[in-house]
Amino acid sequence: MKTAIGIDIGGTKISIALGNEKGKILSECLIPTRTGTQTRQSVRELIRNIKKLLEKYPAPKYKNLGIGAGLPGPVDPHKGTVPVSPHLGGWQGIPLRKILEKETGLPAVLANDANAAAVGEKFFGQGRGVSDFIYMTVSTGIGGGIVVNRRLLEGAGFVAGEVGHMTIVPDGDPCKCGKRGCLEAYASGTAIAGYVERQLRRGTKSILGKLKSKERVTAQIVGLAARRRDRLAIQAYERAGFYLGIGIANLLNILNPEKIILGGGVLKSSPSGFWSSMRASCKRDAWPEAIEAVKIVRSHLKGNSGNLGALALVFDKGS
Amino acid sequence: MKTAIGIDIGGTKISIALGNEKGKILSECLIPTRTGTQTRQSVRELIRNIKKLLEKYPAPKYKNLGIGAGLPGPVDPHKGTVPVSPHLGGWQGIPLRKILEKETGLPAVLANDANAAAVGEKFFGQGRGVSDFIYMTVSTGIGGGIVVNRRLLEGAGFVAGEVGHMTIVPDGDPCKCGKRGCLEAYASGTAIAGYVERQLRRGTKSILGKLKSKERVTAQIVGLAARRRDRLAIQAYERAGFYLGIGIANLLNILNPEKIILGGGVLKSSPSGFWSSMRASCKRDAWPEAIEAVKIVRSHLKGNSGNLGALALVFDKGS
Repeated sequence: MKTAIGIDIGGTKISIALGNEKGKILSECLIPTRTGTQTRQSVRELIRNIKKLLEKYPAPKYKNLGIGAGLPGPVDPHKGTVPVSPHLGGWQGIPLRKILEKETGLPAVLANDANAAAVGEKFFGQGRGVSDFIYMTVSTGIGGGIVVNRRLLEGAGFVAGEVGHMTIVPDGDPCKCGKRGCLEAYASGTAIAGYVERQLRRGTKSILGKLKSKERVTAQIVGLAARRRDRLAIQAYERAGFYLGIGIANLLNILNPEKIILGGGVLKSSPSGFWSSMRASCKRDAWPEAIEAVKIVRSHLKGNSGNLGALALVFDKGS
Repeated sequence: MKTAIGIDIGGTKISIALGNEKGKILSECLIPTRTGTQTRQSVRELIRNIKKLLEKYPAPKYKNLGIGAGLPGPVDPHKGTVPVSPHLGGWQGIPLRKILEKETGLPAVLANDANAAAVGEKFFGQGRGVSDFIYMTVSTGIGGGIVVNRRLLEGAGFVAGEVGHMTIVPDGDPCKCGKRGCLEAYASGTAIAGYVERQLRRGTKSILGKLKSKERVTAQIVGLAARRRDRLAIQAYERAGFYLGIGIANLLNILNPEKIILGGGVLKSSPSGFWSSMRASCKRDAWPEAIEAVKIVRSHLKGNSGNLGALALVFDKGS
């Protein structure tokens, strides 16, 4: 059986999985992400756990083709170093690909996590058999990956697919990236929570106003309130859906793909108003030919899409 | 010598050229575009002129590989019919590819005009040797063509590259396409003239206010006024440049290309403020990695980029 190791390196935890070429995870483990002065220790722990997984599934029955790793930020796959990311202080510049290859004797490939997830969709999900599609993850932030002619578009500076940072409102709301008016500042989980907080401060009535000050408003909690027909909560999701629809319409007019595949936590907690609002503004702003040609679908990958994406990077390299 | 015929079909005139694979036009002619009930006559005139050109450059010295045609609107190259376009009433649905092939015995290929121009850049212009680039024409409208991995991106519904119709201001100014807030409604020649007209009606002082009522304000005239340091004219171009820069930044963040190639009449008449304003907003809204990786250049193709693009369609098919 052909297998690969997929690693999803996030700001708080690292998920390590061994799976086969059908996208079935055979075994996985989670370790905390240690940063700063503890980074070296964290890398050692990562290597140790990879080795353990490899020992558990030995040749000749299991033929491990390599190791894939998804990381936040723009990843140069040729350099194979960890990119600058606010979530991974201390990791920046670590030659992770070389370390993985030297320690395991296997080929390794690094990629941006949302790009990896797009490759995961191509191999295991809604992207199978689709020539041109865009994967978008709507979560704390908004990321993406673009597949053209069955190939991931990396971009000349390895930042292709940063769909969350298209400007949707010139000089608009501030975004975590330092710019203003990004799609992420209007349609991400952070944006939904931020909008509710601003409205609460302005005195808008809502069951969310009853949260104790210790409890932070999150998109998930707003989603629960929306299900209980809280007006502000519904409005917050509809607003996010409105802007997301415009962002998708822009992608349709520019790239005219066969599919838009949506993933990420915000979709899980979103009420129906989010979807209808998204579809309405998308239909309004996209060309009829582009709307007619596209299927806008949700990712149906179960489990950790980060791991599946990282696994797929290995199989993609071999294909 | 390998040659091809390139046809540029516009709303008022049809340009027919015979050129070689280096992009040199050997001979060309212009005929008026007749629409409505005169459409058949116009097609016959087109065929007659193509045959004349072919007779002028006969085999074996000239090896004509085929006929390319650029048309406004979304073109399905497989169907090869004339698309719906407000400029070509009466032409819609004409099986132009089949007619051209039957009448000349040569293979023919149809494409959207801005897409064809992108292919022209790939073969003869700033796109030579560039894997990933975006061609944008800023003229009466804003069109574009996207080349990924040295291939024109047609799109699932043949509307890829409609960069002029990304929404740049939600619920913004009306666009000729029927939507609101399109880049074209803010940064095209029509938008520049429209802005000046609105400001004049509001009483803004400008030498453009002295135009006789018969003379329509055009982007070209505004460009002349800007060169004479007319404040409103300069402001109109700076405003257009600001929005164009945001539009380009969006393309950079989404596609992260190696080059943006700009063509079209507005660039010819634009004062320096247009360029500085465009570069400033683009730099502000694009990711540093994307800005660093890209060269934003002007098309240096002389003569009719429409013909060159249409020619290139033929050579592109053969490559």
